Amino acid sequence: MRLATLKSSSADGQLVAVSRDGSRYLAIGHDTPNMLAAIERWDSIGSVLAQLGDRLDQGEGEPFDASNCAAPLPRSWQWLDGSAFSTHGELMQIAFGLDPIESEKPLMYQGMSDRFHGPTDNVPLPSMEHGIDFEGEFGVIVDHVPMGTSAADAMKHIKLIVQINDWSLRAIAPVEMKTGFGWVQAKPACSMAPFAVTPDELGEGWKNGRVCLDLEIDWNGDRFGAANGRQMDVGFHDLVAHAAYTRDLVAGTVIGSGTVSNANYAEVGSSCISEIRAIEMIRDKGPASTPFMVFGDTIRMEGRGLNGGSPFGVIEQRVVEA
Amino acid sequence: MRLATLKSSSADGQLVAVSRDGSRYLAIGHDTPNMLAAIERWDSIGSVLAQLGDRLDQGEGEPFDASNCAAPLPRSWQWLDGSAFSTHGELMQIAFGLDPIESEKPLMYQGMSDRFHGPTDNVPLPSMEHGIDFEGEFGVIVDHVPMGTSAADAMKHIKLIVQINDWSLRAIAPVEMKTGFGWVQAKPACSMAPFAVTPDELGEGWKNGRVCLDLEIDWNGDRFGAANGRQMDVGFHDLVAHAAYTRDLVAGTVIGSGTVSNANYAEVGSSCISEIRAIEMIRDKGPASTPFMVFGDTIRMEGRGLNGGSPFGVIEQRVVEA
Repeated sequence: MRLATLKSSSADGQLVAVSRDGSRYLAIGHDTPNMLAAIERWDSIGSVLAQLGDRLDQGEGEPFDASNCAAPLPRSWQWLDGSAFSTHGELMQIAFGLDPIESEKPLMYQGMSDRFHGPTDNVPLPSMEHGIDFEGEFGVIVDHVPMGTSAADAMKHIKLIVQINDWSLRAIAPVEMKTGFGWVQAKPACSMAPFAVTPDELGEGWKNGRVCLDLEIDWNGDRFGAANGRQMDVGFHDLVAHAAYTRDLVAGTVIGSGTVSNANYAEVGSSCISEIRAIEMIRDKGPASTPFMVFGDTIRMEGRGLNGGSPFGVIEQRVVEA
Repeated sequence: MRLATLKSSSADGQLVAVSRDGSRYLAIGHDTPNMLAAIERWDSIGSVLAQLGDRLDQGEGEPFDASNCAAPLPRSWQWLDGSAFSTHGELMQIAFGLDPIESEKPLMYQGMSDRFHGPTDNVPLPSMEHGIDFEGEFGVIVDHVPMGTSAADAMKHIKLIVQINDWSLRAIAPVEMKTGFGWVQAKPACSMAPFAVTPDELGEGWKNGRVCLDLEIDWNGDRFGAANGRQMDVGFHDLVAHAAYTRDLVAGTVIGSGTVSNANYAEVGSSCISEIRAIEMIRDKGPASTPFMVFGDTIRMEGRGLNGGSPFGVIEQRVVEA
């Protein structure tokens, strides 16, 4: 099942089910107006979703247009982003000039969740001096997860999978990291690709709690990277269990993978500019040469299904001056 | 105006206005069922609140019982907690064995906002091994704050003031700080005192964006501290502007002061156990002697109005095994 949210007069938008080919949609209905309402009662709406899926398979539905889409979850009570690709972590320490992070637990921060940009929304930011960067990620949406849930039990709470652009301001990030308090100014609102999909939708692309798909990234129309999500050091179920160690996770919590990154980055490229800059610093034994984004730049991100499909649809947006 | 939220079948509870003496309440009405709805349309409900205030002053209303209270804002889209008392910061570096934090900007982290415990709720936590600690704070609730709002302009977005217990797990906190990602496991849900009050309600106790009131804290019935909120290094308006530097702040965002702490801590005491432990480490040139909380312990917090009143009401709760 693929779900999307159409923009509406409500900040939560209107939840719709989308056909397998992404061409048509059907509204979920008034009992479940939006994604937050759906994830709060996920187990009880299974039959409703199955019926909608059958009708879509039979050709019913209105024409779907991703440019009318909000994020599938336009806002939520909680966004916790991991950093589960150690290649990314190692390169970022070089990019930021920081000592290696020693941690026996997964890395995770809490970010703003009151707004996720839609897949084609312009992204307003205040200054190019801040080092504007994209970060291509995958994420999961969970239903209510009780405090102390184990990683094994966490797997069944993963109801939906999403694709995220975690906008980052790199001139501010290391300054905030050094305080130990984590990021506030360095992490403005993220964006989401149009479709939130159930794990079965990915087939063999969802394995061991990892999204084993290439995340194709194009910056101003040029291919920037196509790293694969399978190299997570820990799975999403481990990240969920980490997050739930001392708190109940509210239904609708989004957990991110952190920037998708592969050890063979020379072949597959990267999912953020900072990584490329670190690679340049290593290669050239000097300063980085690739600049960060400028206002007007476009970024396109598309996770590629194993059949060549586009399970999450496409993020394609422009960064603009606020 | 004092506002409270009665527990109801909704996670957001039922918003009520409370009389000046805290003895009676009137419901706000169906158009504004809860605090989040109120703060989203704050400027348009001023006359409704004023009318309710008049009726309460004339003796109308139902008997108010704080034990039926949720937090005045039982959940919100965003909770950003500062650390604006430098005395607290300096003592915490000693308690945690960390290097001094060098930052030209206010310190701030993003914490969980999907649940604030009510003032008399038991607080379930998983293990005493985590170093369970309270943190007495003040906080503000803002309406929508546009990105880039100045500190001067931020003042008028501060609509309500609250009193908070920011529960902290001290064995985990320094481990998470060292990653630079900030706290997730070390910061479970906070608690709020029953009343959110408009700034005018504090009279001279609200000055320069600071809550200039003593925060009386009793642990298991013994006075622990009564530090005053006026010694914030920066005002709440500065914290709001800091938070809004690269993001719009959604209406209902809660901004915390960090643990209230005074330079003359030897006389006034502290607002968290970690500070006392740091003071012991300095004084005794050895390990701290005061242990953290054990299951069954009670904590009571009450900000004292300049007239001896209790503008926020009382947090009085017990920490229990989850």
